[in-house]
Amino acid sequence: MGRRTAPPPISWLMQAALSRPNLISLAAGFTDNASLPVAEARALLNEILRSPGSGRPALQYGVTAGDTTLRRLTARHLQRLDGVGAHDKNHSPERLLITSGSQQLLYMTVEALGNDGDIVLVEDPTYFVFLSILQSRGLRARAVRLERDGLDLAHLESVLQSLQRKGELLRVKLLYLVGYFQNPTGITTSFAKKCGIVSLLKKFERAAGHPIYLLEDAAYRGLRFAGKDVPSALAVRGAAERVIYAGTYSKPFATGARVGYGILPEPLFTTVLRIKGNHDFGTSNLLQQLTSRALASGAYNRHLTRLKKRYAHKARVMKQALQKHFPSAVEWWEPAGGIYFWARLPKNASTGVKSKIFQSALKNDVLYVPGELCYADDPTRRKPDHEMRISFGSASENDIREGIKRLGAVLRKLV
Amino acid sequence: MGRRTAPPPISWLMQAALSRPNLISLAAGFTDNASLPVAEARALLNEILRSPGSGRPALQYGVTAGDTTLRRLTARHLQRLDGVGAHDKNHSPERLLITSGSQQLLYMTVEALGNDGDIVLVEDPTYFVFLSILQSRGLRARAVRLERDGLDLAHLESVLQSLQRKGELLRVKLLYLVGYFQNPTGITTSFAKKCGIVSLLKKFERAAGHPIYLLEDAAYRGLRFAGKDVPSALAVRGAAERVIYAGTYSKPFATGARVGYGILPEPLFTTVLRIKGNHDFGTSNLLQQLTSRALASGAYNRHLTRLKKRYAHKARVMKQALQKHFPSAVEWWEPAGGIYFWARLPKNASTGVKSKIFQSALKNDVLYVPGELCYADDPTRRKPDHEMRISFGSASENDIREGIKRLGAVLRKLV
Repeated sequence: MGRRTAPPPISWLMQAALSRPNLISLAAGFTDNASLPVAEARALLNEILRSPGSGRPALQYGVTAGDTTLRRLTARHLQRLDGVGAHDKNHSPERLLITSGSQQLLYMTVEALGNDGDIVLVEDPTYFVFLSILQSRGLRARAVRLERDGLDLAHLESVLQSLQRKGELLRVKLLYLVGYFQNPTGITTSFAKKCGIVSLLKKFERAAGHPIYLLEDAAYRGLRFAGKDVPSALAVRGAAERVIYAGTYSKPFATGARVGYGILPEPLFTTVLRIKGNHDFGTSNLLQQLTSRALASGAYNRHLTRLKKRYAHKARVMKQALQKHFPSAVEWWEPAGGIYFWARLPKNASTGVKSKIFQSALKNDVLYVPGELCYADDPTRRKPDHEMRISFGSASENDIREGIKRLGAVLRKLV
Repeated sequence: MGRRTAPPPISWLMQAALSRPNLISLAAGFTDNASLPVAEARALLNEILRSPGSGRPALQYGVTAGDTTLRRLTARHLQRLDGVGAHDKNHSPERLLITSGSQQLLYMTVEALGNDGDIVLVEDPTYFVFLSILQSRGLRARAVRLERDGLDLAHLESVLQSLQRKGELLRVKLLYLVGYFQNPTGITTSFAKKCGIVSLLKKFERAAGHPIYLLEDAAYRGLRFAGKDVPSALAVRGAAERVIYAGTYSKPFATGARVGYGILPEPLFTTVLRIKGNHDFGTSNLLQQLTSRALASGAYNRHLTRLKKRYAHKARVMKQALQKHFPSAVEWWEPAGGIYFWARLPKNASTGVKSKIFQSALKNDVLYVPGELCYADDPTRRKPDHEMRISFGSASENDIREGIKRLGAVLRKLV
């Protein structure tokens, strides 16, 4: 099965970056290096490893589903965010599985639900590593148009209707949604849209003859620096048995300590737990204890408060640079969290890896993610290639200013 | 695909253990708790996180293949063990991938090579989680008899011939071998046998029309406490493009810091690397840095020397207890490393989970792994159920003595 796994676009971009030492990368999804919690992690690990009593369990195997305390703290955290009680079934620690980053949860969910040739509905554009999972596992993607507050529900309905007409509804297993500060566009799905999605999926479920799940990827949820949090799809009424939620401590705390989690309804929870057992028996106990202590001690929240201020500042720096250097023909979207801006050039422009714009940007030592990489292979529409994802995650303020200046100069010349 | 993933036997055993607080478990594959390197890990993590210069890279994403230093140190370590030069192609860091325990390497290798209905050759008996991977991915196992120094080569040849006659050779993709202190029998495959296996696989490859790989799982290699190390299959002449080697730092150092690795020939290396990218982008950098520093500083080797002495001692304690308490009708194999003894009852006895012996052992608060769980579903032979795997890995000396005494009493009564 893996034989058909195509080279990931990101590896090409990374290679391009490595070969040019002065390159400013606005492409990477890396997090801010300067704010990584080095001292905090050190203090917490010192506490854990101070005595054999707490140190040995951290260095021994645990259970596959994950550390009980971490599962409980995570469930409580989500209950508070979604404004539900401690006994809400959809937010129960019993349904919660600790994973190696939320990426592993995405992978295992697709593994559990998707057979060769099945169809997964995705936002258009969407997270390109998710597309890579689908491709490698022989699944097809159907793209649903995005509006500024999430999926275009009318288009979702027409896609489902069209699949039903073609007799392909029975191949539809899942809709994948990056609910918060979407990768790549930065948009956040409104709660009303989440309700609309769940009810549309339920409507077509009868004709499909099996559950159609909604997988909400909330990887960036913690990184909001403006506006108010939106409840997750777990809080949609009647969503109990159909919503899968993927979260992570990796991006908000430390991407080098890969701890994510998922909430899944039965029987999917049990299936994914067994797959996790076959993958790796369970995520490193040391990393789980580190995360658990960071949460319990308040170090996690203190760090996150600082980190969000920092991202807010870097987003402002990028915004000002975009205002100053990008030609007015380029439209760009300002996010309220996460680490991405999304820029849209006039439709006749091309930003793809072989385009003049991309090549000229590279020659001028600045890298972005071409929008086309974020679009699924969907034969029902032409793949747009006039957009770009620009990240302020890992670049310093100076590099953001200089990078956008370089990119602006390229665009002024070529657009 | 995951839908068919069956409940792992080990979870049943763990549940049995949890419900009896006075139970002595000789079943778990956990490692010795008292010798976990708590102080060593603490000192190393303190070094890593002392300054932003070394701390930040440990808390940031890395590259999917793994940390360059760790890959280099690991390759050098294997070169020394196998007695080959630094430029040996089969031991090159370029072919080396860091994984979340060696388990993940096993999983991804099967994912890369096996399609639905394909056949994997396994030792009879073998590591039961590997059987669980095959089962969940829709692969079939064909079992090859074991002798005290590894696979019965005549039987391997006859299994391959029989598959060829049935036209099924084109479904055979892989032979899986636990080369050192095998789980569950404790036996080690001789180098001569490894050479014989490689040459038999090559012989039948022509008829198969595609490569048949040998996957050598060396998870316990570092844990030898008697006798001399045997070179791995990587050192077999002419094995260059057909041998996959899975190793780990998890069992020899800390199972809670899950770092393993694999060596794979191209194009398999690239395929598995892409699968790893889709699984999780790469193993936690913090755990990789910890391992890398443990190796470079000598802490790893010092720890391993102590650990091996401890396992040697615990193996002696178990041996003495077996001599004292087991009836003479029960044959058992003493290992030269690893953490398992293998005991064989008379053929008319049954040790399975529903047997009188297992139930009586449980009632007397002692747990073992029934041998039948380690046998593949292979329609060409009856599944033996008169054996047991007994581990001295996690139990204390007293628990080993008392556990074997309890088990011996059960056997004296029921055998």
